[in-house]
Amino acid sequence: MNFASDNCVGAAPEVMDAIARANDGAVPSYGGDDLSRRVEAHFSEIFERDCAVYFVATGGAANGLALSVMSPPFGMILCHEQSHIQMDECGGPEFFTGGAKLLPVAGVGGKLTPEAVEAALAGFPERPPHGAPASVLSLTQGTECGTIYSASELTALCKTAHDAGLLVHMDGARFANAAAAMGISPAEMSWKAGVDVLCFGGSKNGCMAAEAVIFFNKEQARDFEFRRKRAGHLLSKMRFISAQFDAYLDADLWLKLAGGANAMAAKLSKGLGGINGVEISYPTQINEVFAVFSDGVADKLRTQGAVFYPWVTPGDPADGKMQRLICSFKTTAEEVDGFLQLVRDFTR
Amino acid sequence: MNFASDNCVGAAPEVMDAIARANDGAVPSYGGDDLSRRVEAHFSEIFERDCAVYFVATGGAANGLALSVMSPPFGMILCHEQSHIQMDECGGPEFFTGGAKLLPVAGVGGKLTPEAVEAALAGFPERPPHGAPASVLSLTQGTECGTIYSASELTALCKTAHDAGLLVHMDGARFANAAAAMGISPAEMSWKAGVDVLCFGGSKNGCMAAEAVIFFNKEQARDFEFRRKRAGHLLSKMRFISAQFDAYLDADLWLKLAGGANAMAAKLSKGLGGINGVEISYPTQINEVFAVFSDGVADKLRTQGAVFYPWVTPGDPADGKMQRLICSFKTTAEEVDGFLQLVRDFTR
Amino acid sequence: MNFASDNCVGAAPEVMDAIARANDGAVPSYGGDDLSRRVEAHFSEIFERDCAVYFVATGGAANGLALSVMSPPFGMILCHEQSHIQMDECGGPEFFTGGAKLLPVAGVGGKLTPEAVEAALAGFPERPPHGAPASVLSLTQGTECGTIYSASELTALCKTAHDAGLLVHMDGARFANAAAAMGISPAEMSWKAGVDVLCFGGSKNGCMAAEAVIFFNKEQARDFEFRRKRAGHLLSKMRFISAQFDAYLDADLWLKLAGGANAMAAKLSKGLGGINGVEISYPTQINEVFAVFSDGVADKLRTQGAVFYPWVTPGDPADGKMQRLICSFKTTAEEVDGFLQLVRDFTR
Amino acid sequence: MNFASDNCVGAAPEVMDAIARANDGAVPSYGGDDLSRRVEAHFSEIFERDCAVYFVATGGAANGLALSVMSPPFGMILCHEQSHIQMDECGGPEFFTGGAKLLPVAGVGGKLTPEAVEAALAGFPERPPHGAPASVLSLTQGTECGTIYSASELTALCKTAHDAGLLVHMDGARFANAAAAMGISPAEMSWKAGVDVLCFGGSKNGCMAAEAVIFFNKEQARDFEFRRKRAGHLLSKMRFISAQFDAYLDADLWLKLAGGANAMAAKLSKGLGGINGVEISYPTQINEVFAVFSDGVADKLRTQGAVFYPWVTPGDPADGKMQRLICSFKTTAEEVDGFLQLVRDFTR
Repeated sequence: MNFASDNCVGAAPEVMDAIARANDGAVPSYGGDDLSRRVEAHFSEIFERDCAVYFVATGGAANGLALSVMSPPFGMILCHEQSHIQMDECGGPEFFTGGAKLLPVAGVGGKLTPEAVEAALAGFPERPPHGAPASVLSLTQGTECGTIYSASELTALCKTAHDAGLLVHMDGARFANAAAAMGISPAEMSWKAGVDVLCFGGSKNGCMAAEAVIFFNKEQARDFEFRRKRAGHLLSKMRFISAQFDAYLDADLWLKLAGGANAMAAKLSKGLGGINGVEISYPTQINEVFAVFSDGVADKLRTQGAVFYPWVTPGDPADGKMQRLICSFKTTAEEVDGFLQLVRDFTR
Repeated sequence: MNFASDNCVGAAPEVMDAIARANDGAVPSYGGDDLSRRVEAHFSEIFERDCAVYFVATGGAANGLALSVMSPPFGMILCHEQSHIQMDECGGPEFFTGGAKLLPVAGVGGKLTPEAVEAALAGFPERPPHGAPASVLSLTQGTECGTIYSASELTALCKTAHDAGLLVHMDGARFANAAAAMGISPAEMSWKAGVDVLCFGGSKNGCMAAEAVIFFNKEQARDFEFRRKRAGHLLSKMRFISAQFDAYLDADLWLKLAGGANAMAAKLSKGLGGINGVEISYPTQINEVFAVFSDGVADKLRTQGAVFYPWVTPGDPADGKMQRLICSFKTTAEEVDGFLQLVRDFTR
Repeated sequence: MNFASDNCVGAAPEVMDAIARANDGAVPSYGGDDLSRRVEAHFSEIFERDCAVYFVATGGAANGLALSVMSPPFGMILCHEQSHIQMDECGGPEFFTGGAKLLPVAGVGGKLTPEAVEAALAGFPERPPHGAPASVLSLTQGTECGTIYSASELTALCKTAHDAGLLVHMDGARFANAAAAMGISPAEMSWKAGVDVLCFGGSKNGCMAAEAVIFFNKEQARDFEFRRKRAGHLLSKMRFISAQFDAYLDADLWLKLAGGANAMAAKLSKGLGGINGVEISYPTQINEVFAVFSDGVADKLRTQGAVFYPWVTPGDPADGKMQRLICSFKTTAEEVDGFLQLVRDFTR
Repeated sequence: MNFASDNCVGAAPEVMDAIARANDGAVPSYGGDDLSRRVEAHFSEIFERDCAVYFVATGGAANGLALSVMSPPFGMILCHEQSHIQMDECGGPEFFTGGAKLLPVAGVGGKLTPEAVEAALAGFPERPPHGAPASVLSLTQGTECGTIYSASELTALCKTAHDAGLLVHMDGARFANAAAAMGISPAEMSWKAGVDVLCFGGSKNGCMAAEAVIFFNKEQARDFEFRRKRAGHLLSKMRFISAQFDAYLDADLWLKLAGGANAMAAKLSKGLGGINGVEISYPTQINEVFAVFSDGVADKLRTQGAVFYPWVTPGDPADGKMQRLICSFKTTAEEVDGFLQLVRDFTR
């Protein structure tokens, strides 16, 4: 009953097999191998556009490096106040960009609105060179609160950003979960809505350590290669990341794994919602469930071996009482049922 | 009738004279001269404590360099959402610190409260190494809204910061104005209240270009000298900054100049407050007046040669209608009276 | 016949097996798992000292992060002019440290001498705060030229560094090859000789992507964890790096793999040395052979499928004619024999 | 008898007068005043080209900011191993650029040659993204050794740089001294020879604190304004730097002052050269004299009140025995004669 994070489990068997298969032979290092070329091309196919694609091993690297080519070092990046880049990367974006400013913006359920973005920008009237000029709007899909931006919401936000001269970055650590939930094409979820750069996650959804930075306008990738190298994020044996993505993209594995995790979260959310004394905090739209239990229940659950963490962030409406429960591609119906039974036992 | 900023006027005659006097002779460069030594010592005297004192030419340099020794590059600096370091230095603190994160916190009239600081910190629970650890609380005295922290307010804020393991930085670009208004000792306004590092401004109040960074605990100055040098902020002919401060500190000139500016602002504020159709936005405690005029009046005033800017910042309650009027040490009663007459003429 | 680099081959079977085994179950992420703890402890055992050990995926990250805690951002790092940190990391150390200066120092066969280090330091007399203060001496073992520092050479260099107040960093991307060749203990090769921090490489010698940064004085690790995180180098599924090292350290696998590569290089070097018209540039002490062929021979070898690169660096004595041939743990005697036969065929 | 540095004296009377005159009235801050506009235009006139001109208070700021727009953060800047940016700015260029690499290149008398630059570049073959790509060649005119590049030497060096895709930066802290000595136009000394960006110094030659960064191709200035601001180098009362340059450029004051310093250095050099037991180390072409005295003489001179420093740098041929003597615009013939007499007295 581990609901701590989607990165507490290992990799999917298909991914492990691909890694093993990739081990043979001598091939050019640093991404010069054929497999890497082929997988990069597969991304362009899936996204229905000729993209510049770069692989790294962590989401923090993907976000930081992407932002470092999207923003000047003196630029300002707008993001949700609960976003990963603001809360969980120990100042990574500031480091990679050489000192860009992150402007946290509030929003219900982990989501920004065009109005909130406009209001935030209005507080920073252009006064060059005094204020840090806004450069990027960063969106997370699916969000840190387990919610999803609809295609039209994305389109409106991207329009707001572009109208103000900003580029749009999407932290897609759980892009797969959003895609599985929305049932629209990856293109519609990204560049067709106006996203300029997508950090497409694999590590949380069945890969070992694989993230892709996708520039939908290739020329915007600029000096990404140099920045990735000097940040120590160009793997010498790149084939092993490429192999992960090869399996991950093949036969829609990424959507199947994410869909499974989403289904378990839906089951968990529905079950919890039906228990008196449990409150679901946000709509459960991907693989994350946020809930407030009656006093003392969370601790009791933990003594029975359930693993999950309290969710404390800026703007949290629940005063530290909210709990985050994440389902992974490996979460089983039995685990969920067992957990629900425990909650019922403790809540009466 | 220039109320645009306190840095639109030149330097005080006493300061100009001191600069002229300092021009004689060959002396060691880079601050190795006797005058610099003596003026540094004068600061320790005025602040009743053996301090480490460093001179630079701009407030942005003072703040950025101070913060760069107070915070690790991955630290988080809490500041008011309208503070100069957040709004007006084009990402300077991020640059000097090598990427520290600024966390903007809201507060009425440019002032933070212990409760707001605690709430902000509560949103960032310690989860090393994921969240950027809070390192510094930055306060501005007098504030960007022309208000003042009382000694007891400062003491409470510093206690909140220290209890949470943060150091306290004070942006004192208008410290002189606050000091003149409060009538308590510089020591009581700073280290006795808990301030660790003060950026003591001269440029806005009668100096040409002179700011002092004062570490009340000398060992906390650490590698300041190296950082100042590599940032190009160690002036070769340092004597010319020292000379400014020599005159500025002598016979309380700094307090006299600031007191004059404050008095003119008080007169202006009182006058405006008595005019129907003019609304004073914040209490006028130093040399800044914030006011909302009836529609169209501000533009008319400008056509008559009055110079001042609208005040637009995050959290601004007046939707871009608020105007900022600053009095300098050179502002005269005639200027104020003339301006008030114009306002009366246009407002009926 | 791929002699391009030791990172053109995959991972050793034992390492692949360990990765597969580590895939089971839900464990804490970010290195909080038991396996990571155990493997860190294994390092302390092998090095006969209680060390602080951190895992990352690339050598560039290991070097950059290590140097970022060893040097202030305004410090100066002395290194060989052909060293990886100077030539091959696209300015990585400068990036990670926030702007430290690298001072390249010349030396025969990729090796520095105490005399050369002293001469370099003598050119930078202490004049705080004008010159960047020397902070670190970085040594590479085995070197980029396939040579080795003897224990006494290391001891002398470390003494020179320490006497001048510098810390000693060792880039050990090929530490295993040096260890296999020298036959002395890891402790003697590192902290007993005076090395403060070792970047212990796995990726070039049978791992998939695994490097360990080892601080022999734990308190010197300081804020490494924060720096690793914000640089995006803390892997969420850390168990997969730990598993690699688990297998790599077990039963001296690391020494066996390196010893095999060394033996093939020795065979290759001896074979080439016996061919008229081939000149061996540096003593072959680990798994790298540097050779100058007769005109046109290198190109002919390449047309026959041999893969290797010219070696062009500062101070290169051979005007771009030198070729670098690297043997990996997978290189076979047949490959070497086949290559030698080709060389003989083309050289007459 | 102060020959320590050209920044040990104050400012020229004409400059002081201009500063005093500029003190009147309220004008826009941050360089928005008319005087600043006019002085910027004067630079374009003097250099016979429409330039982008920016004022700062120190040479370190000028160099660092200029390089930060000329080089990407992962670029490599070639400079003389004795240059100010390498030896005397405490890593300033690395700081301002966000981590660019400085590659020190040797050369006799502080001067680089096309051959040395080509050889240095040849050691860094293009292997993107592994090596830091060369971005800038930085030249100093007049050099740190008191020598001068002729127009044809400059032209050849700039051609070498441009052919390799580099921009050319000129550290002109003593550009005035070189100009006075060479008797050719400022344009011929800079952009007509191929220089892209010139840091034109005033502080060492009669200004108080005034340096101009001149981009001969305005579009290359890019985001200079933002970088200057966030580095704290945009002075609020900019008029006071502009006023210095106003006087400095007027009626060729800059050339007269520099010519005077040069003449005194020539007199000093000639006098010293005629004394048995004194060796002049470099040709005295501007206002710096480098000399080796007989053992003990330098110390004796110092006891008599002569102020000057030993010159110790990388590549120094004199083993720490060389002394640097600098004449300023204020140095008098009497001072020089007095010093020469002392040398004669002590040297026999």
